[in-house]
Amino acid sequence: MSLVEKTLESIKPVDSTFLERAQKRLDNLTKPRGSLGRLEEFARRYVAITRNTTPVIERKVIFTFAGDHGVADEGVSAYPKEVTRQMVYNFLNGGAGINVLARCVGAEVVVVDIGVDYDFEDMDGLVSKKVVRGTGNIRKGPAMTREQAIRCMEVGIELAQEYAKPGYIFGTGEMGIANTTPSSAIVAVLSGKPVREVTGRGTGIDEDAFEHKVKVIEDAIRVNNPRADDPVDVLSKVGGAEIGGICGLVLGAVASGIPVVVDGFISTAGALLAMKMKPEVKDYLFASHNSVERGHSVMLNILRQKPFVDLEMRLGEGTGSALGIFLIEAGIRIYNEMATFKDAGVSEGKD
Amino acid sequence: MSLVEKTLESIKPVDSTFLERAQKRLDNLTKPRGSLGRLEEFARRYVAITRNTTPVIERKVIFTFAGDHGVADEGVSAYPKEVTRQMVYNFLNGGAGINVLARCVGAEVVVVDIGVDYDFEDMDGLVSKKVVRGTGNIRKGPAMTREQAIRCMEVGIELAQEYAKPGYIFGTGEMGIANTTPSSAIVAVLSGKPVREVTGRGTGIDEDAFEHKVKVIEDAIRVNNPRADDPVDVLSKVGGAEIGGICGLVLGAVASGIPVVVDGFISTAGALLAMKMKPEVKDYLFASHNSVERGHSVMLNILRQKPFVDLEMRLGEGTGSALGIFLIEAGIRIYNEMATFKDAGVSEGKD
Repeated sequence: MSLVEKTLESIKPVDSTFLERAQKRLDNLTKPRGSLGRLEEFARRYVAITRNTTPVIERKVIFTFAGDHGVADEGVSAYPKEVTRQMVYNFLNGGAGINVLARCVGAEVVVVDIGVDYDFEDMDGLVSKKVVRGTGNIRKGPAMTREQAIRCMEVGIELAQEYAKPGYIFGTGEMGIANTTPSSAIVAVLSGKPVREVTGRGTGIDEDAFEHKVKVIEDAIRVNNPRADDPVDVLSKVGGAEIGGICGLVLGAVASGIPVVVDGFISTAGALLAMKMKPEVKDYLFASHNSVERGHSVMLNILRQKPFVDLEMRLGEGTGSALGIFLIEAGIRIYNEMATFKDAGVSEGKD
Repeated sequence: MSLVEKTLESIKPVDSTFLERAQKRLDNLTKPRGSLGRLEEFARRYVAITRNTTPVIERKVIFTFAGDHGVADEGVSAYPKEVTRQMVYNFLNGGAGINVLARCVGAEVVVVDIGVDYDFEDMDGLVSKKVVRGTGNIRKGPAMTREQAIRCMEVGIELAQEYAKPGYIFGTGEMGIANTTPSSAIVAVLSGKPVREVTGRGTGIDEDAFEHKVKVIEDAIRVNNPRADDPVDVLSKVGGAEIGGICGLVLGAVASGIPVVVDGFISTAGALLAMKMKPEVKDYLFASHNSVERGHSVMLNILRQKPFVDLEMRLGEGTGSALGIFLIEAGIRIYNEMATFKDAGVSEGKD
């Protein structure tokens, strides 16, 4: 049995009895029932996912997968392709948005070269797992072979297995110039919605460039004809290496009972592929934020996720995941640290 | 000139030239322009409020004002009145929601007895500034005298002056059983909207109790006939001691150029009174979250504030302020710590 198959097979549903047990504790804390709203939900779900009524967060790891995209040649991004590798250096030097926000929440950033079109020297902190040296231009043919797509997922699974320990929480992130284009293609194929309805302006393109981007994605789907019922086919034909890595990371984490905080548009495309392979996946996910990218909410609906916040962000890298990790930890600390009515000598309400 | 008058007079408008200067730096950081959305807005506004293009947060202080309400006798809350004082003990012992969330963000909680109907012994950490021993029942008469209302505001101003230093950020919070009732009364009077449209379910009351609460507030406004163009009159007739304290804290902070993060429904009523006394106040405020309480959004509209998050919270105490402080700090760290395109050797986009 392959690693992917084995991983899918070991995924168990979340035990919902833990939700009730967690809520019982939350209801004994010195506050009106439910008055901490979604912070309580985060704590409750974390307890259920980890099957531990005394939850802890020991370590927070955000995985930022980097890959290039042949479709960048079609001029779908406001940025030149070399920015992908330049940003990898920026990540390793701690100067990018994700580094700052990860520091804000005490998370570490694991930078993974899974598909950058550049040969990095050996560098401290860079995890070299290159599967492709950039994908093919999806407007003209497949992004990669089926074997490469599976290998991308395996990279994610292997990383999850390497890091998975009780008390860990993972976040997803990515870097890849032009990667909103394959992400929109994936959503269009998996949701059945018109390309135009799931395509946004990425890093910031104008009206003409947007029309062009829609056409490129429509062409990519027509030329490659991916099968909506086969996520690996979709990933290989119109996806990207970093999206495959994220899909694998999610599967590997879920198989190990590790909660996964999902970043924005591109990360959610990876998570959606994982969920299409195993529907139980969605109960392990936390959707950190609502991206400005159209098409994000379409995926979140399929994943039955309500994003934590809408701060009009559209950077990727894992920046939303960092904020999400903070809010989950806040919920867990409420659960663990607040006094009960009895301990604090506070009268209970009539509800 | 009285302290309140002096404070109002020393309030200056925010210097909007700083907004542009801050945005210029943000636009040089290694990310597509504007891609960190509201985190950039928070940094920009913080720079403008503090008039400092190298912003810092040295210390974070959340002021939790506690007061009792005579109108609790009308059965408008799901909790008995003694919970106010019980929760003060809980705050001092570090067991309440605000204590936990303040710890999450590195803020301290200053607990102020401004109107609790109980004589506390001397206790470490309790700031004793009692103006009233609970307010009068507003269904039958005024909450307090005009002099007491002014004294409540002075307490807030004095605390702000005592704590105000460059690099400080304040958050507001409160505790007071039944205090959504005077808050709804204040919004109704100041907004001119029907009581029903600005009244919610507080700590969690049922349909009958809600109808009763609406009637109590309508009675309070009819009996006291507060003057909408005189915020002190509104505060004294249908307000509360802790709401006055928050109003004063906001005025004192703004006069010292200190940014203020406003918590939910009750805190916003205090901020709204302050803004009615000096419209420039609103540019110094950060609305941390959207409360479940109806009427909150009415006030936020008047204050031209878009709340940072909506996590379905309705606890008060300053819990939303704590989350807001975290997000502002995240924005400031983005501003301070991210690499520029030039320093990181990253190519700029076409935008």
